[in-house]
Amino acid sequence: DANGLIVESHDQAFAVKIGGRLHTDYGVIKQASSSRETDARIRNARLGMQGHVHNDWQYKLEFDFAGNQTNATDLFIGYSGFDAVNITLGRHKMPSGLEALTGIGNIGLMERSLPSNLFSAGRQNGLSLTGGGQSWSWATAGWLGESRANYQDSRYGIGSRLSYAPYSRDQQHLHLGISSYYQNYRNTHSDAGRQYRDLTFSSRPEISIASADLFQSRLESVRSSQTYGLEAAYIRGPWSMQSEWFQQQINSAGQHRQQQGWTIAGNYMLTGESRGYQASTGRIGGIRPAQALNEGGYGAFELVVRYSDAHLQGQHNGIRSDNKAELWTVGLNWYATQSVRFMANYNHVDLNQTAQTKQQAKALQIRGQLVF
Amino acid sequence: DANGLIVESHDQAFAVKIGGRLHTDYGVIKQASSSRETDARIRNARLGMQGHVHNDWQYKLEFDFAGNQTNATDLFIGYSGFDAVNITLGRHKMPSGLEALTGIGNIGLMERSLPSNLFSAGRQNGLSLTGGGQSWSWATAGWLGESRANYQDSRYGIGSRLSYAPYSRDQQHLHLGISSYYQNYRNTHSDAGRQYRDLTFSSRPEISIASADLFQSRLESVRSSQTYGLEAAYIRGPWSMQSEWFQQQINSAGQHRQQQGWTIAGNYMLTGESRGYQASTGRIGGIRPAQALNEGGYGAFELVVRYSDAHLQGQHNGIRSDNKAELWTVGLNWYATQSVRFMANYNHVDLNQTAQTKQQAKALQIRGQLVF
Amino acid sequence: DANGLIVESHDQAFAVKIGGRLHTDYGVIKQASSSRETDARIRNARLGMQGHVHNDWQYKLEFDFAGNQTNATDLFIGYSGFDAVNITLGRHKMPSGLEALTGIGNIGLMERSLPSNLFSAGRQNGLSLTGGGQSWSWATAGWLGESRANYQDSRYGIGSRLSYAPYSRDQQHLHLGISSYYQNYRNTHSDAGRQYRDLTFSSRPEISIASADLFQSRLESVRSSQTYGLEAAYIRGPWSMQSEWFQQQINSAGQHRQQQGWTIAGNYMLTGESRGYQASTGRIGGIRPAQALNEGGYGAFELVVRYSDAHLQGQHNGIRSDNKAELWTVGLNWYATQSVRFMANYNHVDLNQTAQTKQQAKALQIRGQLVF
Repeated sequence: DANGLIVESHDQAFAVKIGGRLHTDYGVIKQASSSRETDARIRNARLGMQGHVHNDWQYKLEFDFAGNQTNATDLFIGYSGFDAVNITLGRHKMPSGLEALTGIGNIGLMERSLPSNLFSAGRQNGLSLTGGGQSWSWATAGWLGESRANYQDSRYGIGSRLSYAPYSRDQQHLHLGISSYYQNYRNTHSDAGRQYRDLTFSSRPEISIASADLFQSRLESVRSSQTYGLEAAYIRGPWSMQSEWFQQQINSAGQHRQQQGWTIAGNYMLTGESRGYQASTGRIGGIRPAQALNEGGYGAFELVVRYSDAHLQGQHNGIRSDNKAELWTVGLNWYATQSVRFMANYNHVDLNQTAQTKQQAKALQIRGQLVF
Repeated sequence: DANGLIVESHDQAFAVKIGGRLHTDYGVIKQASSSRETDARIRNARLGMQGHVHNDWQYKLEFDFAGNQTNATDLFIGYSGFDAVNITLGRHKMPSGLEALTGIGNIGLMERSLPSNLFSAGRQNGLSLTGGGQSWSWATAGWLGESRANYQDSRYGIGSRLSYAPYSRDQQHLHLGISSYYQNYRNTHSDAGRQYRDLTFSSRPEISIASADLFQSRLESVRSSQTYGLEAAYIRGPWSMQSEWFQQQINSAGQHRQQQGWTIAGNYMLTGESRGYQASTGRIGGIRPAQALNEGGYGAFELVVRYSDAHLQGQHNGIRSDNKAELWTVGLNWYATQSVRFMANYNHVDLNQTAQTKQQAKALQIRGQLVF
Repeated sequence: DANGLIVESHDQAFAVKIGGRLHTDYGVIKQASSSRETDARIRNARLGMQGHVHNDWQYKLEFDFAGNQTNATDLFIGYSGFDAVNITLGRHKMPSGLEALTGIGNIGLMERSLPSNLFSAGRQNGLSLTGGGQSWSWATAGWLGESRANYQDSRYGIGSRLSYAPYSRDQQHLHLGISSYYQNYRNTHSDAGRQYRDLTFSSRPEISIASADLFQSRLESVRSSQTYGLEAAYIRGPWSMQSEWFQQQINSAGQHRQQQGWTIAGNYMLTGESRGYQASTGRIGGIRPAQALNEGGYGAFELVVRYSDAHLQGQHNGIRSDNKAELWTVGLNWYATQSVRFMANYNHVDLNQTAQTKQQAKALQIRGQLVF
């Protein structure tokens, strides 16, 4: 995220930026009934190329190779030749939620909130239209489910997001947003007579090194879902806070279910920097240390605290279940430079799942992060 | 495919070009007995580096990460220091067929023809020698099967191709070509007592979003095969046509089988551009829009129609089978700029496989394509 | 490894080098009781980016995609802003052994020695501190086992290495080194009640195209291990020799085991070049041809011979086993230029494993190698 690593043609009609990011995590976790364990995890190991050709055509191809697996993040073609609207085609982030649209390097804690992971549309393969003015933004998108199953087994989906900033001036911003998307799951794939309508909701509960299935809920015979999200954020000098609320209505065979979650977080820059915000896209930015380590300073320090709450309704083999999670996280970040950040997170998670006894998970983790 | 994205040393002895390509497909398909379905597919998501070191030594490393899988396309070292012959070592395209040697970005339809996919030698790991003059080209190659099974389970193979252009001048080219290769499959791998002599021929029938095994044929106890190919192409201003014919003789235990396929396609540039051709390599090139969208024009438009026919002879558990496919495709392409193309294809496929009832597949697909 | 492929910011505070390497191998092997077989293998197909941000922060992200698999090699963040010590965090080579720390492009034979592969700590995910003076180097590191199993199933480990060069001047170097590391394997992962304490030691016996499990040993219920290594190398003009010795003490439930291996190799540059060596890091370098092919010469030629010996002690289902290997390799290398090398290796391996009859493996292999 620094200039100088971009290769441009002489007339600037073509440009390509090669970049990457590395998140390497270490921690100790005490989860459920097992004993305390140490673990390491390469959380993100991304390489990508982005740029433009013939002036107005953008592209981005980025892959995450963490865990020795290949996972596409962004694979899209964009066109910015119109004044009123930008067009994006391919795999990219759908307009849904606030934290989900914040770059992973700009999240104040090591993981996005559990509600954001569970209820945001995330990345899908489709077409989106975006635009905005000085104090507001809009986006609408449609997508098709890909052959390869993701956990949502979508047949198709459509969604929109609207954001408005009542005021947004130097170091002081108020952000309000609303988003909604519809997803249809019916009969996504019927290979071999099997109908992929059963959904599994699963997420590491805000702990990078936790088991992937620590919090899990299954729902049978789902036909469609409608998800609503509300967002608010407030930035004032070194202080910032943000909150999201989601509600998801599930339409399964002959019945209706309702799931929800919400989260609130507060950040404070001990060294006085203020978080970025762009009203014309409704997106939160990052921190630029006032005195980076390489400029004779000691970098920037940030304190973060977050509370999250999620409630999933399961049904498996005809038996209904309630699955609830309450999560507290406190974090301390050191931005050595704009590109290098070290994070420490303490997590306290209470899980109350019908099929299991109450569980607690506690973790202390550190992360080294570099972006180039 | 634009200059400016190349990094060179001052004396030009070293150069590296970083590049990629993205094909993102969306469509609706009605195949066999299942109902109409929509689908999306990242067809190609390639990143690669190619260049030269110490003047005469070329290299290319390119991978396709579509579908979150890793598939090497080209991995080769080349030497061009001799006048009469170029040498290539590693994984690269063997000299076989016309469309198989045409870059995927220069194919007029979304998929190569079924005969080209089934009968061309494709990419193998070996050594090839190539050369040519002003109106002709030759290539000969040998390869060894790799440890990892591909569908051909080759032990080794050798092949050659010869092309001749009776005339080739501005916007008018006639191309004739012949190729042949021998492949030996005997006892390729005998790990755990199993003898990998059984072959499965399988290909999506020219439809990107179709099931991978929609057209399939199995052959038992194959020892070797000899494949012959004839090619012709004619380009005259905005018109072009090309045709390929393949015959494959299979030598299995005590018996001989013969498989074949052919294809013919016609292209017309509505906006008047003419397709490229290089007689010294016998390869067909792409389209450069006369008035690209970024230069005040509306880009280039192209109409394509293709017919293909393939006949495979199977034998499984001692039972012989005949597997035939007849395929029609019509396509409309819009070249927004030289790097950005949108395609629409309508496919009509008739499959007549012994083991199954007659099947039809119809599909309407669109593709966004960007090359950098 | 040539300048000119680096993209730098104007003030040189940022730089990124994109690079890669390709090793493509072909050979014939006669192993154990199976008949002679030919095989091809892409041994290494690496793409990576390395560089620095804000002057003092280094990074490297490199992946090997050979065999259509994704394997991270280096994924680290480094800091070099202190005089006395360099810090590295993430996945990188731990300080252990001599050949293990030599770049794969600088190894004189196609594969590292069997003892080096079996007993070196290799790459791990952790933190290392390194430093040194004009004639010596030190390094110490600690690491945590990653969630994804590697063959060592480490819970955590710590290790150190010390090297000293009694003299090191132009084309004449004497290197001595010692290293040791401790690894704890207890209860690394207890998912689903299974305790991952059983270890499998496995390595291709210095033959690139051999089966991966040709030499194998299993040990049950291992709690920890302590490994010691001694190294020596001598370079004098075109001659060089190097030797390593390892001893590994295994602490398994109630018992102690001891495994060991050693290796010695001699190299001679027929064209007179001398191998590089850096005393301040204790690492052996490569060959720069005096008269590269592109400079009117014929490149450089090198003869190598190596002997290796390894002795592993297994225990499986309560039955003890002794697994021994004796390996001879002779090699001839042609360095066409500094970036392009062709290698030929002849291997003769004697395996004496308790569970199996005595086995011999012989192989003749060639490799094309290009580094950029």
